[in-house]
Amino acid sequence: MPESLSLRCSPDRLLLLDQAALPHREDWIDATDPAGMIRAIRGLQVRGAPLIGVAAALCLALAARGFADLKSPDLRSDRTIADLRSVREIAAALRAARPTAVNLMWALDRMLARLESLVTLVEEGEQQDIPEMLYREACAIFDEDARLCAQIAAHGAALIQDGESVLTHCNTGALATAGVGTAMGAIRRAWEVGRLRHVYIDETRPLLQGGRLTAWECMRLGIPCTLITDSMAALVLRDGRAQRVLVGADRIARNGDSANKVGTYGLAVAARHHGVPLHVAAPYSTVDPACPDGAAIPIEERDPAEVRGVAFAGAEARWAPPGARVWNPAFDVTPARLITSLITDRGVFAPDDLSKHM
Amino acid sequence: MPESLSLRCSPDRLLLLDQAALPHREDWIDATDPAGMIRAIRGLQVRGAPLIGVAAALCLALAARGFADLKSPDLRSDRTIADLRSVREIAAALRAARPTAVNLMWALDRMLARLESLVTLVEEGEQQDIPEMLYREACAIFDEDARLCAQIAAHGAALIQDGESVLTHCNTGALATAGVGTAMGAIRRAWEVGRLRHVYIDETRPLLQGGRLTAWECMRLGIPCTLITDSMAALVLRDGRAQRVLVGADRIARNGDSANKVGTYGLAVAARHHGVPLHVAAPYSTVDPACPDGAAIPIEERDPAEVRGVAFAGAEARWAPPGARVWNPAFDVTPARLITSLITDRGVFAPDDLSKHM
Repeated sequence: MPESLSLRCSPDRLLLLDQAALPHREDWIDATDPAGMIRAIRGLQVRGAPLIGVAAALCLALAARGFADLKSPDLRSDRTIADLRSVREIAAALRAARPTAVNLMWALDRMLARLESLVTLVEEGEQQDIPEMLYREACAIFDEDARLCAQIAAHGAALIQDGESVLTHCNTGALATAGVGTAMGAIRRAWEVGRLRHVYIDETRPLLQGGRLTAWECMRLGIPCTLITDSMAALVLRDGRAQRVLVGADRIARNGDSANKVGTYGLAVAARHHGVPLHVAAPYSTVDPACPDGAAIPIEERDPAEVRGVAFAGAEARWAPPGARVWNPAFDVTPARLITSLITDRGVFAPDDLSKHM
Repeated sequence: MPESLSLRCSPDRLLLLDQAALPHREDWIDATDPAGMIRAIRGLQVRGAPLIGVAAALCLALAARGFADLKSPDLRSDRTIADLRSVREIAAALRAARPTAVNLMWALDRMLARLESLVTLVEEGEQQDIPEMLYREACAIFDEDARLCAQIAAHGAALIQDGESVLTHCNTGALATAGVGTAMGAIRRAWEVGRLRHVYIDETRPLLQGGRLTAWECMRLGIPCTLITDSMAALVLRDGRAQRVLVGADRIARNGDSANKVGTYGLAVAARHHGVPLHVAAPYSTVDPACPDGAAIPIEERDPAEVRGVAFAGAEARWAPPGARVWNPAFDVTPARLITSLITDRGVFAPDDLSKHM
């Protein structure tokens, strides 16, 4: 049964670790009901692009169990027809919870494609337990994500030299995926095999995924780590405190330009200035063949309130003057020329070589 | 009578704007009593190296008024001797409020030197109203700081080209000095003469002097400004949103290496990468002739709690896991080679040329 650091699923119950409450409380929220899942996505209680997709797929599968007729569907029955429509509506509602999340779209599209293929089989006269088959599909999505993470981690860990310390940004670990994570997975693997010395963690303003989540994850794993503000990263590289930078990616263009959490670009500039290698770790599926270069990647601007202060479970502080104008891009694009290599489940590529493998 | 954005002084009362309460409340605190002044320094209610020095000098002068015998001192009187000792003790207590603040030492040393010269005159038979003369000395320190600021502002504003936007870090304005400030003074002057277009303000983690104070100061002056997180600064430079970076300095070595609020170094690296000029604005007295280069500047590490969260008047939020290890250097050193020019009250210098003028 699907179980990870931040997700526990049985055939009739889906629990998610409330990431908005971390690191102060380890609360599990019930996301079995799609309405609960949507609230969790909107409230950033579940985050990390791969994890959101996996969790939504499982939620859809569990919701399908609520429609008794789908266990042995009869396409001549109005009830079966209505139940199928309900499942499709739930998928649409889950999708709308975060319209920009590519993994969420992808996972739900895959679940709906499975549903349609099952309907076709039923039409052709085969008996199908639709909820059971959807659950298996969601479990497969979960397992595949975990496997991708393991592959990325193995490839990435191999790049880290004996005794090196690394700097990372945002959260790319087991809280963001169904497995060990991407950049953080590689760091964790290098630690497990005894090669890694230390991790420096950017706090990652404005949403503090580094300070709240990566710090918590590293400490939980016993990996020696030091938290810094984003403004101290250049010093860490200058002083040789970290010899390598590992970050994740939300979307990678065909030419290797990579979009990731805001702050990654500045980090890449500082890494280049100090001759420190910077690696982008992500599933190969993050490469968007339709996207020629970084200029084609739209950058979402988020709520100014995020920059005017901080707000998370149980704490809120606003320090900016009321009405202060804010620029709050959620992501930035690091050009391929500042990226030493891309670490994917299919192996490690120079950004230039990416298009040769497509 | 000394009056600035954050200080109001009459011969019998010293008021300071509570900077820990900004921007939410504009509270004035009574710092006439040295104990109140020391509390205000320790609680960061008064900050900015020049302002602390000026305020402590005024506080010492007002405290001297409390000793009636000093108005017409008689060095054969035990009371005069005791009163003089008390004034020296108050100076020592003010000094100890922040032992690393060079301007605080300097201002109090100057006040004590004035006191000793007055004592000498009394010994030689002259009548001296010591409290009145100390008050005049403190007012002179205030006026000189304001004049330095005006000179720095004029030199700095002349560098800003018509229609340019600038990026700044931390708070270097009227809240930090007795005058218009240093880097912020230049920005303000350029705005007043109609050359400046826009100011981008780094929030300046961990203590948020940009997000809380510079944003407040700019908005109060009507200067169009946009607040960003420190991690977005490189994007502002890459996109050509700002064509120039202006920062302050806490200490400048003989070779031009400059220590300033942490984050300045990363900003300088990003500025160089994008071919954007970076200027350091500070009184010429910030140049320490005894300091050969940046390596000789000690960097204070502050309380880890500052990085683990935020705390200021009325609001506190901790997001890091309890016990998270933190690195929290308060300052960093930008090497001379990354500095386009130093803007001082004596004019604008290439960092290389600094030593020629000493």
